Amino acid sequence: MKSDIDQLMEAVGMDAFLVTGPAKHNPAMFYFTGGAHLTHAELIKLRGEDPILFYAPMERDEAAKTGLSVRNIADYPIRELLKESDGDVIKAAGLRYKKMFEDLGVNSGRVGVYGKSDVGKTYATFSYLQESMPGITLVGEGSDSMLLQAMATKDVQEIESIRSIGKITVAVVDQVADFITNQKVKDDVLITNDDRPLTVADVKSRINLWLSEKGAENPEGTIFAIGRDSGVPHSAGDPDGFIRLGQTIVFDIFPCQSGGGYFFDFTRTWCLDFATDEAQSLYEDVFAVYTQIMSELKGNTPCKPYQKRTCELFEERGHPTIQKDPKIQEGYVHSLGHGLGLHVHERPWFGQTATEDDVLAPGAVVTIEPGLYYPEREMGCRLEDTVWVKQDGSIEIMVEYPLDLVLPMSIA
Amino acid sequence: MKSDIDQLMEAVGMDAFLVTGPAKHNPAMFYFTGGAHLTHAELIKLRGEDPILFYAPMERDEAAKTGLSVRNIADYPIRELLKESDGDVIKAAGLRYKKMFEDLGVNSGRVGVYGKSDVGKTYATFSYLQESMPGITLVGEGSDSMLLQAMATKDVQEIESIRSIGKITVAVVDQVADFITNQKVKDDVLITNDDRPLTVADVKSRINLWLSEKGAENPEGTIFAIGRDSGVPHSAGDPDGFIRLGQTIVFDIFPCQSGGGYFFDFTRTWCLDFATDEAQSLYEDVFAVYTQIMSELKGNTPCKPYQKRTCELFEERGHPTIQKDPKIQEGYVHSLGHGLGLHVHERPWFGQTATEDDVLAPGAVVTIEPGLYYPEREMGCRLEDTVWVKQDGSIEIMVEYPLDLVLPMSIA
Repeated sequence: MKSDIDQLMEAVGMDAFLVTGPAKHNPAMFYFTGGAHLTHAELIKLRGEDPILFYAPMERDEAAKTGLSVRNIADYPIRELLKESDGDVIKAAGLRYKKMFEDLGVNSGRVGVYGKSDVGKTYATFSYLQESMPGITLVGEGSDSMLLQAMATKDVQEIESIRSIGKITVAVVDQVADFITNQKVKDDVLITNDDRPLTVADVKSRINLWLSEKGAENPEGTIFAIGRDSGVPHSAGDPDGFIRLGQTIVFDIFPCQSGGGYFFDFTRTWCLDFATDEAQSLYEDVFAVYTQIMSELKGNTPCKPYQKRTCELFEERGHPTIQKDPKIQEGYVHSLGHGLGLHVHERPWFGQTATEDDVLAPGAVVTIEPGLYYPEREMGCRLEDTVWVKQDGSIEIMVEYPLDLVLPMSIA
Repeated sequence: MKSDIDQLMEAVGMDAFLVTGPAKHNPAMFYFTGGAHLTHAELIKLRGEDPILFYAPMERDEAAKTGLSVRNIADYPIRELLKESDGDVIKAAGLRYKKMFEDLGVNSGRVGVYGKSDVGKTYATFSYLQESMPGITLVGEGSDSMLLQAMATKDVQEIESIRSIGKITVAVVDQVADFITNQKVKDDVLITNDDRPLTVADVKSRINLWLSEKGAENPEGTIFAIGRDSGVPHSAGDPDGFIRLGQTIVFDIFPCQSGGGYFFDFTRTWCLDFATDEAQSLYEDVFAVYTQIMSELKGNTPCKPYQKRTCELFEERGHPTIQKDPKIQEGYVHSLGHGLGLHVHERPWFGQTATEDDVLAPGAVVTIEPGLYYPEREMGCRLEDTVWVKQDGSIEIMVEYPLDLVLPMSIA
């Protein structure tokens, strides 16, 4: 949680950190600024002190709205920095950081760097900064970063944000179910009012519209994958593809609050009108594993064993799994789930990269999403819900929605 | 242009480059993959050779759709990389790059790094990669990067993409004009059908809806700033603010194609029903400078002198400018415009950071957006169009739209 940051900094020996980039669609900066309209900002926090936001002069009002302590970045005029750096923009940017750190009294210690930005420019800038401030150690981290550790558990406000985007998500899922079951059918294919086949692109444009109407955004797109595509876990679906009765449709939707805030993540698998015996049996295997794992989840336990357990359950049912062969493209081929917050995928992890720090701690929000994929047999199935680990260690599905495979078509 | 890349690499002495990150909302990766649904990929290009896309195994179908040469990143299994790196995820990621480069025969020379991603993780990974491959020099660049130089001129397909999002943009602007001039008015404030004041948030939610209906996205938000807010160039506008007759409304809209593709950028300043003499005079100064600069623009000329010229024109009319004092927050406080493409702001530059390489070259697409800001007098004005420098050096406004200040209210 955000309130743990000073303690986490101490635990990893971090004396200060820098966050760079825009406020939108940049989890680290959004975390502190709440998605204000800042096209580019810098934030520095020293351990035990409040963060300071450096804003571009044109964005002073937006910066003020964050409620943070703010400073005008034009106090470090680029013109003079360029002069001191022989016109080298990278050196000028590095020099600006140096002056900012020095002004805040950061002359030694370990300094973390966070944010989402241009990797080339920041690599060069940070390398120059490191060279020109040998007293500090710039620390870049991976999926075990101090900030991701803080983000891995959510406070009450964050839970409300996630639940609110979750409610929007299932409302849209419901609209989609309603929409597709109310189409006409010709030769087992859905047909629009103007007598052409309904396409995946048609459905997706409505999804974006309905999300937008409700104040959500869909920056990562939607998976609406049918038949063979549904057997390829991350196939987004063929935009020109038709929607055929009886085929498995994997519908995975992961929108966020407008402006790049908190995400939700949700999947259902549908067959319209009827399911083949093969699809029904695939679904039953996934449903059984989903139900079993959901019943076993418990707060304050490590994540990784649940992945192992999921593989065992699928293997018992005769499916190949990623545990046996990491390169398989059939059977159970991914990890059980992932943390969810300002990133659609964040800590805690369940898969290969999970460590003993990946735990279902109180405040954690994770997806649970077992699935089976058989592209050659033209089918796939995944069921995904987002759950919250409550203070008492109990597990709550954040937004409930029916898990049914077959959606009966409405009779016109 | 993309076809210039090998030549540009040669000019800057670059032997290969790496692009990292997702395909969406990541200009460098979108440039090569066209916005396929790739949540994370790596692309390596050697000078004189076709780029190679390394895809995550779950995304092989999406990778194949790009038409690029592709390889499965699981050929470098993370499990083994972690073993070789004592479980250190950063070292494992660096080691993977090393093996990828070695397999492609990149053992020496200058290697560029591009993309938008987590700056902490990439800084650490690239630092480790550099350390473990002393034969190569990893090159991170700033606003003068080789790739941004390529992107600074657009081919015909890119021009069509920009024009198409431009047409969507002005169609939505027209819907907004129509919508606000058809509201009821009470005490000079716009009133909705359910008799409450219309807010900026109401207008913005319609903007997002109308953009979404037309297949566009609005990842950076919209500026709809009224009165004092219109006098602060990057104020996005107060969501709860009311819309009052006669006040200046700066409406700056910069959507992109769905999935983080090409942007458009467009601003009009409106007064509903009437303009005060002060606002009218402010508008006339901006309009005169806009018209003058538009008439002077010529292909194959450097950008920076147009900024100087704009400052002179505003100074002649008695306004303070950023040329006289870079820290001013009244008068003409920003630069004349910027290149536009996969970034809403890209090369060529007109402002302080512009170099002699920032030129209106054939194929360039730039915004022209003079403006004046007087927050204390509760007004601001900006007029912005996006122009294309054609092959013969002539300038074309990409999408025309009336520049009028006053929007008469419809009579109910």
